[in-house]
Amino acid sequence: MSAPDHGSAHRLERLVFFSDAVFAIAITLLVIELHPPHLHYGQPFAEQAEAVLRLVPEFWGFAVSFWVIGAFWAGHHRAFALAARWDERLIVSNLWLLLAIASTPFFTAFMSANTFARLPVMLYCAWLLAAALLNLNLQRHVLRAPVVAEDADPALLATYRRRGRAVVLGAASALVASALMPYPALGLALLLSMPLWRILLARGGRGATA
Amino acid sequence: MSAPDHGSAHRLERLVFFSDAVFAIAITLLVIELHPPHLHYGQPFAEQAEAVLRLVPEFWGFAVSFWVIGAFWAGHHRAFALAARWDERLIVSNLWLLLAIASTPFFTAFMSANTFARLPVMLYCAWLLAAALLNLNLQRHVLRAPVVAEDADPALLATYRRRGRAVVLGAASALVASALMPYPALGLALLLSMPLWRILLARGGRGATA
Amino acid sequence: MSAPDHGSAHRLERLVFFSDAVFAIAITLLVIELHPPHLHYGQPFAEQAEAVLRLVPEFWGFAVSFWVIGAFWAGHHRAFALAARWDERLIVSNLWLLLAIASTPFFTAFMSANTFARLPVMLYCAWLLAAALLNLNLQRHVLRAPVVAEDADPALLATYRRRGRAVVLGAASALVASALMPYPALGLALLLSMPLWRILLARGGRGATA
Amino acid sequence: MSAPDHGSAHRLERLVFFSDAVFAIAITLLVIELHPPHLHYGQPFAEQAEAVLRLVPEFWGFAVSFWVIGAFWAGHHRAFALAARWDERLIVSNLWLLLAIASTPFFTAFMSANTFARLPVMLYCAWLLAAALLNLNLQRHVLRAPVVAEDADPALLATYRRRGRAVVLGAASALVASALMPYPALGLALLLSMPLWRILLARGGRGATA
Repeated sequence: MSAPDHGSAHRLERLVFFSDAVFAIAITLLVIELHPPHLHYGQPFAEQAEAVLRLVPEFWGFAVSFWVIGAFWAGHHRAFALAARWDERLIVSNLWLLLAIASTPFFTAFMSANTFARLPVMLYCAWLLAAALLNLNLQRHVLRAPVVAEDADPALLATYRRRGRAVVLGAASALVASALMPYPALGLALLLSMPLWRILLARGGRGATA
Repeated sequence: MSAPDHGSAHRLERLVFFSDAVFAIAITLLVIELHPPHLHYGQPFAEQAEAVLRLVPEFWGFAVSFWVIGAFWAGHHRAFALAARWDERLIVSNLWLLLAIASTPFFTAFMSANTFARLPVMLYCAWLLAAALLNLNLQRHVLRAPVVAEDADPALLATYRRRGRAVVLGAASALVASALMPYPALGLALLLSMPLWRILLARGGRGATA
Repeated sequence: MSAPDHGSAHRLERLVFFSDAVFAIAITLLVIELHPPHLHYGQPFAEQAEAVLRLVPEFWGFAVSFWVIGAFWAGHHRAFALAARWDERLIVSNLWLLLAIASTPFFTAFMSANTFARLPVMLYCAWLLAAALLNLNLQRHVLRAPVVAEDADPALLATYRRRGRAVVLGAASALVASALMPYPALGLALLLSMPLWRILLARGGRGATA
Repeated sequence: MSAPDHGSAHRLERLVFFSDAVFAIAITLLVIELHPPHLHYGQPFAEQAEAVLRLVPEFWGFAVSFWVIGAFWAGHHRAFALAARWDERLIVSNLWLLLAIASTPFFTAFMSANTFARLPVMLYCAWLLAAALLNLNLQRHVLRAPVVAEDADPALLATYRRRGRAVVLGAASALVASALMPYPALGLALLLSMPLWRILLARGGRGATA
């Protein structure tokens, strides 16, 4: 690079910046799929409450996707905190993850509007699995040479890699469960299996090392 | 951390950056709930004016929420100006506040479209109270060890904490008033009680110290 | 402030950053008011072209507002490039300008959908005048003590101030013209009087100094 | 400029920042043109799948435009990594490119909703050609004096310039093809000719030098 201030650090910073903006917009755009009900003048309080309660599936979808995007952002944040050198091909691995992030509002809205149906829930889980795989791919790119800082703590790198794999396994579990369960939306509960997968992977890792 | 430029300051900066983007998007998305009226060709000026005046509740909701988000942003800005060290758990306390901020357009639109009804106004105040509590929680996290700068002025910290508590008390007052008043939207006027609460808390603080 | 890296420069930077995000979102949200027409299968090319041509007023409103926001952003950029010290009250003067910027999509859409009517065009010009005055107010705040850099070139400061006043005079001219002209949208042409006002103000300034 | 930290680097950074935000918002706003279908309770899985498959043209438009904006962002990123000095006129050349970027969601939605018709596809290609020319114009501005870093590698500059010209030639090819082909949307395949143009330009360049 031509000048020290336009070198690796500068280019990494701009990539991170652009990604942060995409994460922030996707997480905030989720709200435009929440359609506030129009009440009639003089409508009793109980009916007003009923109109609001009918929005529960949409709120729930909003909250799930908010934390999903938040978690991917946190992972991006953690991985890039260990990045030290620019690599031109980061642009493409990063854009692939952002494609998944930017399409969240669509999959969320489709699921929220049709929580009773199997396909929208399965599509949501399949999208999540795709996002998890693209995330893993980017993470691998960031956490190895030439990008990663040479003095990065190997134990920290191993932890981050396990987290990335646990997200993939959690999303795959939710996809399988949403395909099999009588009420498909319950399959999403399997997303909560991620910490479990992380523990299993940590044990497996220690076993392999021992 | 591996390198000085990827240490505490860098990670705090990225968190602040991401938060700023969410604040900025939420504050700007408010406008898409203002639906411009379609006029007919040759419609008299008085009727045009009438169509615009019918939007007054929506404008009013837009303006209230603009300043509410602006005030939360200013508080975030002030608190993080005193932050000196990164703490991993900041990610979660910060995302909780951003969840409240990102959902502002929904609660604003629901209230603006139904200013005559009690439930939307109460929900708006309840959302504001939740945001104020999540703000207080984040602020506490930022303004104490290990995050806060060691040489931060204790008087400034006390002022910021009082401001945070005054926001909670103002939102709670507005919630109670919107539940009791004959015209619920008037309850929002109690938001203006925040400076009063700040003065009362300052007096109480001095009393306790004396 | 507690630490050098959390001092004036840092707080100015975050304010600028937040403002940039609001400018960027407002300028990009303008596009969602352009509604693409739905064509029928086998519709002749001439009819397709007609459907697109019917969007000309909306495109024109989009382009005008794009350059209006772009110009306000450029002014903000120029003024803050001369800022050197943080002032707490910048938060409020800046939020006032951002309120005007964030509401651009509404005034643009109202005018674009009703270019034949007087009120929407007058409202657009009135909004522009309000934005110009809030911009002047912020600019004055930034370009004087304690905010402005002590070694800022006085000739540059004078030029920037004249630009700010020329925007106010141009918007006021357009408002008057849109109220008086037989076809109100033509009044917007008076926005192009801004460079003229700048020249007149520069001559007046030299006259006063001489 | 008054202070070193408000000089060239600072102003370039803010321009880049503002541009990144516009790129990020345009790329993420594309998703709001994907309208999730509403299913009926008890609708068979095959019909659910059919409803989703009907969205394929919209998904395809979303994906094409995502990578188009991503590619323009990558080009902007590469060019500005070689910029070292601020030039006031960058504001205008940059805003022209951003105008094209910000209007992407409109041209995408128009094409996606009417893939069978010639005009929307031709308009999309014409918009892409305009964006490519505005990109070339900005790139030339950035990659020559006074903006470019003096020690920038001439071979790198030549490569970047060829890339910019190849984008123009690829968009022009797609425009011609969409005007002539029996099924206009196939013309977009000519966008993939860009790498070919790049190779041809590189050979032509070597021929000219030889």
